Amino acid sequence: MDAIDVIRAKRDGGALTPAQIDWVVDAYTRGAVAEEQMASLAMAILLNGMDRVEVARWTEAMIRSGERMDWSALDRPTTDKHSTGGVGDKITLPLAPAVAACGAAVPQLSGRGLGHTGGTLDKLESIPGWRASLGNDEMLGVLRDAGAVICAAGTGLAPADRKLYALRDVTGTVESIPLIASSIMSKKIAEGTGALVLDVKVGSGAFMKTVANARELAETMVAIGSDHGLRTVALLTAMDRPLGNAVGNAVEVAESVEVLAGGGPSDIVELTVALGREMLQAAGLTAAKDPADALRDGSAMDVWRRMITAQGGDPDAPLPVARETHEVTAPATGVLTRLDAYGVGVAAWRLGAGRARKEDPVSFGAGIICHAKPGDKVTAGEPLLTLFADDETRFPRALEALDGAVEVTDRGTVDAQPLIIDRIA
Amino acid sequence: MDAIDVIRAKRDGGALTPAQIDWVVDAYTRGAVAEEQMASLAMAILLNGMDRVEVARWTEAMIRSGERMDWSALDRPTTDKHSTGGVGDKITLPLAPAVAACGAAVPQLSGRGLGHTGGTLDKLESIPGWRASLGNDEMLGVLRDAGAVICAAGTGLAPADRKLYALRDVTGTVESIPLIASSIMSKKIAEGTGALVLDVKVGSGAFMKTVANARELAETMVAIGSDHGLRTVALLTAMDRPLGNAVGNAVEVAESVEVLAGGGPSDIVELTVALGREMLQAAGLTAAKDPADALRDGSAMDVWRRMITAQGGDPDAPLPVARETHEVTAPATGVLTRLDAYGVGVAAWRLGAGRARKEDPVSFGAGIICHAKPGDKVTAGEPLLTLFADDETRFPRALEALDGAVEVTDRGTVDAQPLIIDRIA
Repeated sequence: MDAIDVIRAKRDGGALTPAQIDWVVDAYTRGAVAEEQMASLAMAILLNGMDRVEVARWTEAMIRSGERMDWSALDRPTTDKHSTGGVGDKITLPLAPAVAACGAAVPQLSGRGLGHTGGTLDKLESIPGWRASLGNDEMLGVLRDAGAVICAAGTGLAPADRKLYALRDVTGTVESIPLIASSIMSKKIAEGTGALVLDVKVGSGAFMKTVANARELAETMVAIGSDHGLRTVALLTAMDRPLGNAVGNAVEVAESVEVLAGGGPSDIVELTVALGREMLQAAGLTAAKDPADALRDGSAMDVWRRMITAQGGDPDAPLPVARETHEVTAPATGVLTRLDAYGVGVAAWRLGAGRARKEDPVSFGAGIICHAKPGDKVTAGEPLLTLFADDETRFPRALEALDGAVEVTDRGTVDAQPLIIDRIA
Repeated sequence: MDAIDVIRAKRDGGALTPAQIDWVVDAYTRGAVAEEQMASLAMAILLNGMDRVEVARWTEAMIRSGERMDWSALDRPTTDKHSTGGVGDKITLPLAPAVAACGAAVPQLSGRGLGHTGGTLDKLESIPGWRASLGNDEMLGVLRDAGAVICAAGTGLAPADRKLYALRDVTGTVESIPLIASSIMSKKIAEGTGALVLDVKVGSGAFMKTVANARELAETMVAIGSDHGLRTVALLTAMDRPLGNAVGNAVEVAESVEVLAGGGPSDIVELTVALGREMLQAAGLTAAKDPADALRDGSAMDVWRRMITAQGGDPDAPLPVARETHEVTAPATGVLTRLDAYGVGVAAWRLGAGRARKEDPVSFGAGIICHAKPGDKVTAGEPLLTLFADDETRFPRALEALDGAVEVTDRGTVDAQPLIIDRIA
């Protein structure tokens, strides 16, 4: 087998054979196929696509490049959720405990933020003492003890994907649906979950800007799950405005704790409950307790406290607070008709909540609190957004990102997506 | 400027701006754009193309990456020929001296063989003492003294192309007409010739297998020449069968010397004269001596001898001879209706005339002599091809390459291309 033959086959519009896929993924992981060869192949895949059989095999080859985790020692079914990433998307934080409180085990391997979308691990690390890195035995221990665990994926999981993702990031080959779908699914299948719910975000603050693209990605991932015997369901959900009111790290943890305490913003509660029900159903727990009840009766909060404590965190410790604040006031009296997710996400990123390079630290206190959401009435001069940063020199560029992101009109109607746009099973 | 933005622009089907092209070619040459980034861009260019403005600018950027030679010190106009490569294509050897004998200066930078097509420098190096590497001053000296010089391009000429060609070779991105055209033309324009004739080969033994592809390449190169103020003409010529009777290194030099002595195979003479007339016309030497006369009257041979001698070669020294020979006889009595250029080229390559890797040496004596050409009558059992190699273990794989390359039938007609298929100016 030869890298150039594989590249040519895809370049010329053909389908790669299972043998070609197995070979090229393995050889790339071993370093026998060079970075520039895989870059050329990735661009050919981006432009010429892969069919369902190819995508399933590509995913399988990436799974086989590393270990596959096994939770059969647990006495209850496992189920997990993956979000394609958004602004203010802290759903995992209340969701994993709520689903665990209803009887499933949630072994969630999460990621860090890059660009304008936040990362679950960055958010949780704002809790003093909390550790993202666990060994497999520790992970099993937390799962047994608390019913849910949220931690970083070890380097043994789908190393082919890790290497390929870093390459795609610098070669303009991120935006390929077969490559995105196989990257996500290889990690989730290797993670060993028994059921999977995908939250595919759509809108300005999401990776997928249109419903059509999001639907294609969701269908591709659901097909991969099905081809690997993993019960997989996807919801397409709104990301034209931020989720909830808080965007950042510590501010999102605080909002999640409100939700776990039975309060919090209605969109966060609605999406947490909807995804939780899907996770339980996919795991076969059709007669389980309802996640809405778990949020109301304190059982989700109990799981949260055990989970945070088991990973070294102090659930009662005060969260980091940014040194500087800046208020953005409503430009007019009327209805807030637009609060653009992308603008708010980039502003929070520039305030320090996100990182420009993988190796950068994040500021735990940085972020934004939205005092109104699209559809709310606002009064000229009243606070609309509060910006948080450790250094006031960050405000001007964050405000630039918000330019055009806010619109107040005297119209009564707001042109916003429904929170849950579609369901793909 | 950012490599990912440039890659995305081409990936998404747009045209690259002059600033993007200048930046990416320069940054790649300096190492600021990584090999994997250029590989991804090259695949995007291969699949999405470049328009005439982009190709002209890309060529210009590659020229600017290095030095540009200058022959204004000469008292006569310069003119050059470039062939896209074929089997038995030794045309440069009689052509450069013939054109010089007619009053032009021919500063030819040539290449080495790779794959089944031979390289002019490999052929000339079979002459004892001959040196391919000359400094610019030496090159000017040989041009002044002999009127023609054939040597290796120095590393200072279009280094961007040198780096990019090596990358394309391992990333399945060779077969892009804009990249092929800009690669050839950047070197020829940097070489400083005042006029250029392109010999674009078509057929099984050529890089371009169809007339349509060859025409597109020729038109792209002629447009680049025109956009750079270089008088450029292209001939599309036959490469369905070998050129002449000899395929290899020393055997092709011997055949070239026959042509310079007024004899030699008629197709070599015809193509040499046709290309020579185009070179003189493109250089504005419309009232010059005819190259056919230069071959007949010994003046081309005089230039040849001066040129070889000036580069350290002994034009009277015996040429290397292979240690082993193997005869292939005609399989039947009738007309030779097929002698496939690709099959013969691969056979000669396997005999040792070519190299598998850039760093391999070639065998000067290895090669093939064809005793008949398509259209000739042959008799069963009589010699059809003589194979030469330094080691008899090379014959079996060479014979495999000839399997199906030879066809003798009792039909009277031969389905062969005309030697000169078209002219593009």
